[in-house]
Amino acid sequence: MISDEIEAVVEQSGVREGLCTLFVQHTSASLIIQENADPSARHDLERWLNRLVREDDPLYTHTTEGSDDMPAHIKSVLTSTSLSIPVAQGRLALGTWQGIYLWEHRHHGGRRSIVVHVSD
Amino acid sequence: MISDEIEAVVEQSGVREGLCTLFVQHTSASLIIQENADPSARHDLERWLNRLVREDDPLYTHTTEGSDDMPAHIKSVLTSTSLSIPVAQGRLALGTWQGIYLWEHRHHGGRRSIVVHVSD
Amino acid sequence: MISDEIEAVVEQSGVREGLCTLFVQHTSASLIIQENADPSARHDLERWLNRLVREDDPLYTHTTEGSDDMPAHIKSVLTSTSLSIPVAQGRLALGTWQGIYLWEHRHHGGRRSIVVHVSD
Repeated sequence: MISDEIEAVVEQSGVREGLCTLFVQHTSASLIIQENADPSARHDLERWLNRLVREDDPLYTHTTEGSDDMPAHIKSVLTSTSLSIPVAQGRLALGTWQGIYLWEHRHHGGRRSIVVHVSD
Repeated sequence: MISDEIEAVVEQSGVREGLCTLFVQHTSASLIIQENADPSARHDLERWLNRLVREDDPLYTHTTEGSDDMPAHIKSVLTSTSLSIPVAQGRLALGTWQGIYLWEHRHHGGRRSIVVHVSD
Repeated sequence: MISDEIEAVVEQSGVREGLCTLFVQHTSASLIIQENADPSARHDLERWLNRLVREDDPLYTHTTEGSDDMPAHIKSVLTSTSLSIPVAQGRLALGTWQGIYLWEHRHHGGRRSIVVHVSD
């Protein structure tokens, strides 16, 4: 969960009422907002999506970067590359149960970069 | 369809050229833009997604909040938590056939909150 | 790939640090960010989605506009109608491998309009 890190960026920006936009600079990872309380929800979500987008699918021709590469691209398209969250009273206007997550879709994804834009 | 309510917020803001961002503060409802004319399109969309994301899926472990809870989280991730729509000449720059919808994924979802941010 | 056209709009705007939001004014086409290098990734993505969202699905009742119409609406909801990309040093802050694409989901989609909003 990256909510706290993003919240820190918003705080540093000094913006009280505005908009915070996150953008992940990769095509095999994504940004989602999900349940922040019970880890079983994220666990099930991951397993469900892994079953929908299989690694061993004979349909794939884009396979040179490994069997987890094409599934990662598909998962990225089915989820989100950018997220926009309003800022109210100097904080992200998330609901009580919402957390922001960076979702890595590769087995060994390396370092990932997220660009954060905050404006009023 | 919530297009008219959002349009009213934009009008009240006085912004003529800008951006309107909607954010739903829940992980089991989502915001979508869809066909505003023929209700059969939304009907089919709902039935199609209900078939893809089944309630009786033995994969789920997150089941304490009811059989419609985990499917709702998955549907929320496959659709959108936030939407950004440009504002032109004081109105949402929607296409002729586009309507904004709040999509409730629970059977009894209760009151839902959407935060609307308008800026120029 | 429409990255260069969007980049040109950003350049014309004169914005150095800000946000660029794209919005497609249709419910049967979408905007995605994907691999810009190897066309096989997009090819597989399209084939995968065509298999998930079939044209000949007996579930559909919204069929008067052709067998590719309802699948196009569903694909639009599973992907994105709007995208927000930060602008840094006068350019879109895309990752090295990211390209912006307009994804047409109809067989004969006609002219498509994208509204671009750039602000600092």
